[in-house]
Order: sequence, then structure tokens, then C-alpha cells
Amino acid sequence: MSNATYHKLCELSKTAALQQSILSLLKWDQETYMPLEAVDFRASQISLLASQLHRLQTKKSFGRLLGSLIDLKTGNFLVSDLSPEQKACLYEWKRDYLNAIKIPVSFIKELTETTSRACFIWAEARKSQNFSHFAPWLQKVVDLNRKQAQLLGYSDHPYDALLDLFEPEMKTQEVEAIFSRLKAALIPLIKEIKTKKSPDRSFLKDEFPPEAQMKLGKHLLTAMGLHTENSRLDLSHHPFCIHLHPTDIRMTTRIDRHDLMSNIFSVIHEGGHGLYGKGLNSQFYGTPLGDTRSCGIDESQSRWWETRIGRSYPFSEYLLTLLKKEFPQFKNVNTQQFYQAINTVNPSFIRVEADEVTYGMHVILRFEIEKSLIEGSLKVNDIPDVWNQKMVDYLGIKPPNDALGCLQDIHWSFGSIGYFPTYTLGNIYAAQFFKAFEKAYPDWDKRVIQGEFSFINEWLKENIYQWGRQYTVQELTQKISGKALSEKDYIDYLTAKYHHLYM
Amino acid sequence: MSNATYHKLCELSKTAALQQSILSLLKWDQETYMPLEAVDFRASQISLLASQLHRLQTKKSFGRLLGSLIDLKTGNFLVSDLSPEQKACLYEWKRDYLNAIKIPVSFIKELTETTSRACFIWAEARKSQNFSHFAPWLQKVVDLNRKQAQLLGYSDHPYDALLDLFEPEMKTQEVEAIFSRLKAALIPLIKEIKTKKSPDRSFLKDEFPPEAQMKLGKHLLTAMGLHTENSRLDLSHHPFCIHLHPTDIRMTTRIDRHDLMSNIFSVIHEGGHGLYGKGLNSQFYGTPLGDTRSCGIDESQSRWWETRIGRSYPFSEYLLTLLKKEFPQFKNVNTQQFYQAINTVNPSFIRVEADEVTYGMHVILRFEIEKSLIEGSLKVNDIPDVWNQKMVDYLGIKPPNDALGCLQDIHWSFGSIGYFPTYTLGNIYAAQFFKAFEKAYPDWDKRVIQGEFSFINEWLKENIYQWGRQYTVQELTQKISGKALSEKDYIDYLTAKYHHLYM
Repeated sequence: MSNATYHKLCELSKTAALQQSILSLLKWDQETYMPLEAVDFRASQISLLASQLHRLQTKKSFGRLLGSLIDLKTGNFLVSDLSPEQKACLYEWKRDYLNAIKIPVSFIKELTETTSRACFIWAEARKSQNFSHFAPWLQKVVDLNRKQAQLLGYSDHPYDALLDLFEPEMKTQEVEAIFSRLKAALIPLIKEIKTKKSPDRSFLKDEFPPEAQMKLGKHLLTAMGLHTENSRLDLSHHPFCIHLHPTDIRMTTRIDRHDLMSNIFSVIHEGGHGLYGKGLNSQFYGTPLGDTRSCGIDESQSRWWETRIGRSYPFSEYLLTLLKKEFPQFKNVNTQQFYQAINTVNPSFIRVEADEVTYGMHVILRFEIEKSLIEGSLKVNDIPDVWNQKMVDYLGIKPPNDALGCLQDIHWSFGSIGYFPTYTLGNIYAAQFFKAFEKAYPDWDKRVIQGEFSFINEWLKENIYQWGRQYTVQELTQKISGKALSEKDYIDYLTAKYHHLYM
Repeated sequence: MSNATYHKLCELSKTAALQQSILSLLKWDQETYMPLEAVDFRASQISLLASQLHRLQTKKSFGRLLGSLIDLKTGNFLVSDLSPEQKACLYEWKRDYLNAIKIPVSFIKELTETTSRACFIWAEARKSQNFSHFAPWLQKVVDLNRKQAQLLGYSDHPYDALLDLFEPEMKTQEVEAIFSRLKAALIPLIKEIKTKKSPDRSFLKDEFPPEAQMKLGKHLLTAMGLHTENSRLDLSHHPFCIHLHPTDIRMTTRIDRHDLMSNIFSVIHEGGHGLYGKGLNSQFYGTPLGDTRSCGIDESQSRWWETRIGRSYPFSEYLLTLLKKEFPQFKNVNTQQFYQAINTVNPSFIRVEADEVTYGMHVILRFEIEKSLIEGSLKVNDIPDVWNQKMVDYLGIKPPNDALGCLQDIHWSFGSIGYFPTYTLGNIYAAQFFKAFEKAYPDWDKRVIQGEFSFINEWLKENIYQWGRQYTVQELTQKISGKALSEKDYIDYLTAKYHHLYM
């Protein structure tokens, strides 16, 4: 009997996932091809779908079936013949369901409609470098997020409730502890590097025709294992990846004709997300077993490819060979010069263009600000001052305007507070996973030089993709690395790599 | 009180329209950008949305509210303070609602799932020119359509029930009568033209780079009044247009580097649909007043632009000037030569590439076949023979294979039976409307030569777009032309134009 119930839960879960995937497609379309004037119409479509999705996620019949297999209060399983996979699914469904039923559909509507408009206002405000234009809308978003934290509930800090939506079971306090140790290690490293001579990067800032850049991006994705039969690459204002299904992976990039690496690293980064989505077990599509573990784990995959592979010495050698075929600018560049150039550390204003060493500081700054906004210790109007001061403290530079400062990211305008820390957590997970990978493949560097990447996918599939949400982040980290989550491997990696490059 | 009820009906109607628009977007994406392997996944998404849409369209609360304003049996209005617009809306809602509640959701699911797969099988069968591969699936589609006709009900002919879904209140008998008079007039005309010398078309079959063709297509759409802020043009296997909303019009074309006019006429044709969608009153979006009247009226708009404007002498002059700037092939071509070349009558196998005179025969052939399938007088396996024989009878040519014969159109595979006649009805409406237009603008030709088109849009908006479904097709035709629907203007137009060109 429990099997029939379990099967029915899978079906309902799959329906909600399908609905979610349609919502994602609408968002993909909005960022890639939708005509500009359709913005309000699209907001109505999204609002309708979001309400329908919420209804599916909070369906009483789902709760009843679920409650017959797992005690929704204690988490105890109520039947005895459950497999470990089934137990994991029930545990994750319970999490999602209990979160969903705390949010009334009226709140979803208000949030969707507010953020549709807020995104639009944010884009205008950024263009005109006018934070005060965006401030009232950001205030609405903050208020809604504070309300959401109350609705969801928390024991220690209201930010916990929001963080938990993106990085399940991660606590604000733990993030604070990790980030403060990161700051202690990285701020001195950044200061030290600033005293050193910067390598020559001029050959990366030449003229690179967009068509050739796009062709190269597609070539790199294919090399990584993403094919046009089940994935695509398009242009958008901000690069992103949505994985609708293992057979439908959509990545975007942006192209600056005077900045070759911006496109290349965007493509490799989004490709990392794409491979995770493609590698999920489609047999379990729509259930937690066929879903990405968390935003942080998803980010560990993109940063794995972008930084641990893409910015490595062996990949530099592979990539330079490709570039020499396409662009005459690289004729006299050798691997060491190229490797140094693409790993230049240079404190700058824009997070998405930051190097590996300074990147974490951008994220920590945002985490600290949004945490203060949610606890009520910071006012929206004071964000620009606090932002700029933190930029000075962490990176030694002050943004000349808010477009290069607190207006640069879209996240708050689309309502996501609690998301930013997962960027740095992703880097930390990736570092811890990579140590295990290096043990399994001590010759990985020689293979990468040859453009061989499938063994990396195999390892990631075996260790990460195949599990979906079967293990918590903490369990997964322990399982892969044999130790608890820690920022140590990440700090060690950055320190060793950049000491070697700069000292 | 009736106003509050009416308002609530508008809201429910708008929600269903939004859901429908999302379904349309998924279909647009499927034909333009979706990765190939996602076909099964997309079928699941579409099936889910289609069921949800059906639930919205058959909502008991909608029926209850509707039934309080209009008697669902007699059609009598039950309140006295209704405007003509409100009466029209209630009438159309009643039509749609009574149709929708006759179809169980299980039928919708079966139809959606069957046709998703059938489309795929059809594409394979066409590629391999193997009708027997498609036949069992076409059989399923025919069976489902026969069942649908039974569910919907009819008084004279089961085909009436299907035709009515695309061309409300049109009867099979009326179509048969019109089509038999068309055949009587056009078959002799085609035979006569076949004895005449064909004009030179070689300059149209040269090499035209796809990028230049795409640029030209976008230029023509802009000239017609469609701008990138609220519309777009993409590539697909078959050209089509979906109007999601007056702010989001999506057209597609296909490009053959050796056939310039195929792209140009596709663009102008889809642009005609696009202008109709863009010209609908967005204030009434989601209600019958903000909707296209019927498939036939929609087709009258595309054929208006493609044939009555696009293939006219004055437009030839305008277009040739453009072409001379882009393509050296036209250097020594004059307007008369160009006009003759783009109006060559040449019986051929593919409907979408047919000239104006033979086009109707392709449609009539399909109508006759699908009517026989629905009444049960023709078996699916006999289609190829019947098709080929009719091609000989009507056009004097026999398709060498089924890819050039009964496998050429996608319509049956996606479940549409009853749709084909609207193609020719559209031409007939367009001819009748154009006579009225010529009276209003006797100098239309001089303006078109100058690339002036906005006055045409104004006329169409005033006479057609603004009304949505306020008038039935018969009422609209009467209102515009001052007489009842007749094929006479269409036959007169074709006879005069092609006598002038060929005799």
C-alpha cells in the first residue's frame, strides 16, 4: 500500500516540477527573446503560473498522502518498508511542503507582482545611476522578505528562514563564522597582491568579433559535454543557466567585443550549471532525487568548471591552443603569460567580473548588508554608504556611482534575499570536492591539456549529480571528502595558487 | 449587480486567455529554439497546461455566473441593462463554454498526448517519404476527431462540429457550395493559363545570402507597422505567427538561399496575422472583444497583405526599389517583369508555395479528403491514392512521392481537422473586404508605391481589428461590404488579374 501512496506522491511532485519548469521557461524567454513592451503582460502570465504552482505545492491531498508515510511534526517514518531513497524523498517533500503551506497565495501574488515591477524599476535606476529611484521598491522587497521570514519561522535569526530556502539547513551563524575566517585570510592576501606588479593583459582586451566569440563559446560547451540536441546558448544581459530538464538545458552569455574572457568564463561557468542539470537522473525527474541539491551545490559546479578547471594552468594550455587558431592576437603569447593574464588579481567594482581572490569579498559584503536589512539594523536609504565603506574596507576601492556599487545586481529586485551567500559557499564546496577529485585523478591536468573532460563529468556524476537531494549538503560533503564542511581547502587553494602567481 | 457579475466573467475569461497564451509560447519555443531531445518533456508540459486550461474554460463558477446573465439553452439575455458589446461577449462566452463542457478532460489529455507524438512521427514519415509509418497515427487522430464531433454534437454533418471550432457558425454544406463554384471557375482558368508562356523568373532563383534575406524581412515588417518593441521575427521549419498579446507578436519565416520570394511572402503573410494581433483592443484582452474573430478572418488578414498588397503591381514597384539596393541581380529588372515573375501561375505540389490561382485547389482537395475521413467514406490507407488523383484532376500533376503529396502538411498530425477550409475562406473574405477598401481609398496604389502603409492599417483597424468577436463573420462581412458572403469578388479578382497577366 505504501508503494501506491509513494507513487502518487511522485506524480504530484512531478506535476509541480513541470509547472515550475514552465515558469522557468517564461523567465528564460523574458531575458532572451521577449519583446520589450510585453513586460507587463509577462508579469501577468508569471503571476498566474506562480499562483497555480503554489496551489500544487500546497495541495491538501499531497499533505494527506505525505502524512501517511512520514509524521509531519516529528519526521518519524510511519511505514517500515521504505528504501533509503524513499526516505530521503519523504524527508525533502516534508521540508518543501511545510515551507509552502506557511505562505498564503496572496503573499505569492504580492511578491510576484512587486518584483516584476521592481526588476523594471531597478534596470531604470541602474541606467540613470539613481539609487533613490529604486529605494522605495527595494523597501517593499525587504518588507516582503521580513514578512516571509516571519511566516516561515526561525529559531535564531530571521535571515535563517530566507537562507534556508536557497541553502537548506544552513544557518546564518555558520555562514558568519565561515565568512569571518575567510575575511581574515583573504583581506591580507588581497592587500599583499596589490603591492605586486600586474601581468600584461593587453592581448585579452583587443578586438574580438561577436560571431567568433559565440562560435568559440559553443565549441567550449560541446567540449565540456553539452550538445545542441539537449542544450543551447543564447545572449542575455546577464549570463545565466536554467535546467528545465536533462533534455533541455539553456545557458546564456554576454559578449563584449573588447573583453574576450568575460564571454569565455561566463560560458564555462554556465556550462558547469548546465552539466549538473543534464547529469541529474531523468528517471527521478520531478522528485527530490532528480533535483539539484541546493543553490550552493549548484554554484559549486559552475565555479568548479569556471575556476578549478577553466582558470587552471592545464586548461590555459588547452584554451590557448584553441585561441591561437581563431585570433591572431595570441600568436606570440605563451601558456605562462596567458595563465597569468587570466588570473590577474585586481580589486574592482563589479562582482561578476571579479577575480577568484576578491570575489568572496563582494559576496560577503552583500551578505552582511542583507542580513542587517532583514534584522532591521540597516535602513534601505543607508545602503549606498554602507556598501561603499565596505568596498573600501575589504578591497580598498570606492565605487564612483551606485551603478558600479549597490545597484549592480538584479537579485534584490527580483526578491531574492538569502541567495548571495550561496555564491561563496559554492566555492568552498568546490574546493573541498576538488581535493577528493585530485586524489581519484592525479593525472587530471595532463588529460585537460588534451581537451579531455568526460572523466571529470563521470566523477561529478558519480559523486554529485546522481544523488539529487538524497543527501543533505553536510552529508554530501562528508561522503565525498571524508570530513565536515570547512573553508580550509578553499583558503589553502587560493593562498597556494596566488602566492605561486604573485610572490 | 449584473456589472459585478460581468466584471467577474471578464476576469475568469482573462485568466483562461493568459493560460492559453502560455501554451502558445511553449509551441512557439518548440518550433524555434527548443533543443530536439526535449520533445517528450515538452509534450508533458503542454499536456499539463492544456488540462489546466480546460479546467479554467469549464469552471462551474464561470457557467453559473454566465447563466445568470444569459440563458444557456435559449440564448435569451436575462438582464436588461446590457450594452451591445456585453451582449456579444455573453453570446461568445456561451458558445465557448457550451463547447468546452462537452469535452471531458481525459479526452483533452488523450488528444494532446497523441498529437505530440503524432507530430514527431509525421516529421519522420515525411523525411522518409513513408506514409504507412504515419498512417496508424493519422488513424488515431481521425478517430479522436470523429469522437470529438460526437461529443460536440451537430445536426447535419459531423464535420460541421469540427469546422465550427475554427470558423464559428460556418456549415459544411455552405463550404461545399462555395468550393464547388470556385472549382468551376478556377479549374478552367488554370488549364487555360497552362497553355500560355511562363514569364522569366530566373532572377528570383539566384543566390541570396540568408543574413541579407533576414534583414530584408525585418525591414518589411517595420514598414508594415510591426516594430521590435512588440514583435519579433525568427526562423522555423514552417512559417507561422502567434499573437500572444498586442505587445507580444511573434512571427517566423524560413529562408532558402535560392528562393528569395519564399521568405518575402512568408514574412508579409505572417506580418498580416501579426498586425491583426497587434491591432486588437488590449483593453479587452482575454475577452471575446479582444480576440480574433475566426481562423478565416485571421487568414483574410495574412492573405490581404500577402496577395492583395504584396503581389500587387504598386507593391512590386515599391519592393523592387528595395531589392535593387540590396541585390545586384535586380539591376536590369523592371517593375512589369518583376510583377509578372512573382505572379507566375504554375501548378505545383506544395500548398504553401502555390500561386494565387492554384492555391485554392490545394485547400479544396484537403477539405474534401478530411470531410470524407470524418464521415467515414474514406479510409486513411486510401489517402495517398485519392490525394494524387485529385491533384491530377484539379491541377494536372501527380506527386512523385507522399512527401510532396499527402505528407506535406503538419495540420493533421497536430490534430486539426476542420481547419483547412479557413485558408480559402480567408481569401474570399479578403477579396470582399478589399472591394470596400478600394472604394475608401481609390488612390491606395499610389500610396503603396511610396511605401506608405499606415492608412491600410487604419482602415483594417476601424473595420476589423477593433471589433474582436463582436460581430459574427456573416455580420462583419455584411457590415463591411454591404452584402452577404460570396466567393464572387474573389473569382472576379483572380480572373481579371490573371487574364490581364496571361491573355
